[in-house]
Amino acid sequence: MTDSTNRPIVLVAMGGHAFMQRGEAGDIRDHERNAAAICGSLMTLVERNYNLVVTHGNGPQVGNLLLQNELTRDSVPSMPLDVLVANTEGFLGYVLQQALLNHLRRRDIKRYVVTMITQVLVERDDPAFQNPSKPIGPFLTKEQAEERRDRLGWKILDDAGRGWRRLVASPRPVRVVQRSMIRDAACAGHIVVACGGGGIPIVRGENRDYEGIEAVIDKDLTSSVLAAEIGAELLIILTDVPQVYVHYGKPEQRALDAVTLKEIEVLQGEGHFAKGSMGPKVEAIVNFLKTGGKRGLITSPARLGDAMDGRAGTHFIGKI
Amino acid sequence: MTDSTNRPIVLVAMGGHAFMQRGEAGDIRDHERNAAAICGSLMTLVERNYNLVVTHGNGPQVGNLLLQNELTRDSVPSMPLDVLVANTEGFLGYVLQQALLNHLRRRDIKRYVVTMITQVLVERDDPAFQNPSKPIGPFLTKEQAEERRDRLGWKILDDAGRGWRRLVASPRPVRVVQRSMIRDAACAGHIVVACGGGGIPIVRGENRDYEGIEAVIDKDLTSSVLAAEIGAELLIILTDVPQVYVHYGKPEQRALDAVTLKEIEVLQGEGHFAKGSMGPKVEAIVNFLKTGGKRGLITSPARLGDAMDGRAGTHFIGKI
Repeated sequence: MTDSTNRPIVLVAMGGHAFMQRGEAGDIRDHERNAAAICGSLMTLVERNYNLVVTHGNGPQVGNLLLQNELTRDSVPSMPLDVLVANTEGFLGYVLQQALLNHLRRRDIKRYVVTMITQVLVERDDPAFQNPSKPIGPFLTKEQAEERRDRLGWKILDDAGRGWRRLVASPRPVRVVQRSMIRDAACAGHIVVACGGGGIPIVRGENRDYEGIEAVIDKDLTSSVLAAEIGAELLIILTDVPQVYVHYGKPEQRALDAVTLKEIEVLQGEGHFAKGSMGPKVEAIVNFLKTGGKRGLITSPARLGDAMDGRAGTHFIGKI
Repeated sequence: MTDSTNRPIVLVAMGGHAFMQRGEAGDIRDHERNAAAICGSLMTLVERNYNLVVTHGNGPQVGNLLLQNELTRDSVPSMPLDVLVANTEGFLGYVLQQALLNHLRRRDIKRYVVTMITQVLVERDDPAFQNPSKPIGPFLTKEQAEERRDRLGWKILDDAGRGWRRLVASPRPVRVVQRSMIRDAACAGHIVVACGGGGIPIVRGENRDYEGIEAVIDKDLTSSVLAAEIGAELLIILTDVPQVYVHYGKPEQRALDAVTLKEIEVLQGEGHFAKGSMGPKVEAIVNFLKTGGKRGLITSPARLGDAMDGRAGTHFIGKI
């Protein structure tokens, strides 16, 4: 690891669904098997001698914790959302670091792996708090939802006939509290898992103390902020499609191989990238390139190696 | 932080009950208030310019997660004990690092705080696995307990008329997987929270891969192993009494102010330290002193400052 500080840092973001595929129960075996597969794909970055930071979502996992909270409210103290995010950072960080260590050991590569529990500062006056828009947790009956609204102050939403859900704010990430330690560990050649679930949202309280706040931060946006803070050269967002498309799902659909920052902003303006799916990923890459990042990549785990050879994925070009 | 690498490392261990006092519901406000108090006590170590590693138990917290698992078994995939320990490392690490950061910021001290998710290797052929002895999780009826024994292979115990409980093994910690990163971060002057709940127990599988295993590791023993691995000068175990006693609870009860390794081993042999309470703490200190540690201290958070001045606590002397 003597020359590890000279290696460029790559930050790779993956979704919480990477651990829990459609149709799976989401038990620990599912998580371990999926983590082993995706971490196997990441080995191409290790073998190319990059320093590596891994971030991940936690949607299905925090959903299960919220459901457990609801079902056991009378027996066990319910925990707020910031604490549940911290729980999933421990859980998924463990699963990822075990899978990464096993891949490294099989290849006889001596690199350490660590998960850092990460707080992410958001602004208390972020407009998102005036207009909570992110549905989380289990579907409830109207009566259950209204009871929680009245007792706990929840914002609730009638979700298109499927039931009622709790709405929370999704504020913009301002700063990753542990950024320096993440960067130092990555520069030392260690593989760092951080910012799970977009990070634990905290604000500055009235006395300037840090306080947890019930919100979820978009994990792709947090990843772009962290990538800029630690001077990553490349931000990779892994998803279940190998490329980004324009005119997605229409006859004139076309895959994007490589685009400049200028080009992608035009395509964004034309509304090519759906809000709940590719939109936040493209936005995160654009945010990274506009805050000093050199390159972005969106692809699937299976095509990561090919994409690193310039033969797959959608490549985003910032400043050279 | 320029001279931080020359500062000695102190490792401080606290119990999971430090966050959740007797009679409290154990909600997040209880956890935050207790963490703020105990972390305030730890500031005396920061002000004395020590590098600091903090470990903690998770008994009540993992107990609540086990209860949630039981109550929601039909709705949410149950997670094994190693994963639940990882959850509590995220949860309690977050609570601790938030409290520590706030104390540091109020004092205008620029030090970083990070929680590292920690795997701890145990031996698959540790005799503890032949004789699981640690009761965990909720009390069950005989029928519930036998159903889980038959379906899930649990060891179960009729706990003195209070109900039936699951028994798991408590193997000895062999090695802390993340020891190097914990040491490096501590030597850089960062405050590191690690080995929560005694660490996530893992074994080497048949193919030499790391695998999680359902067990709990004594957090004091893990702390003593980590303290030796990272070259800590002092291992402090915080508990709810200010000193260690001989003839505890008897008329001839006497507090120990300072003892050598040789003295304490004699007192251990005489059976002064109860198995479920002071015994493991004294054993952990002895283990540390026998593996190269210089000094040990057992005291309460409230007396920590006085103890550091030699005016309280029980001090253990190893090699000078």
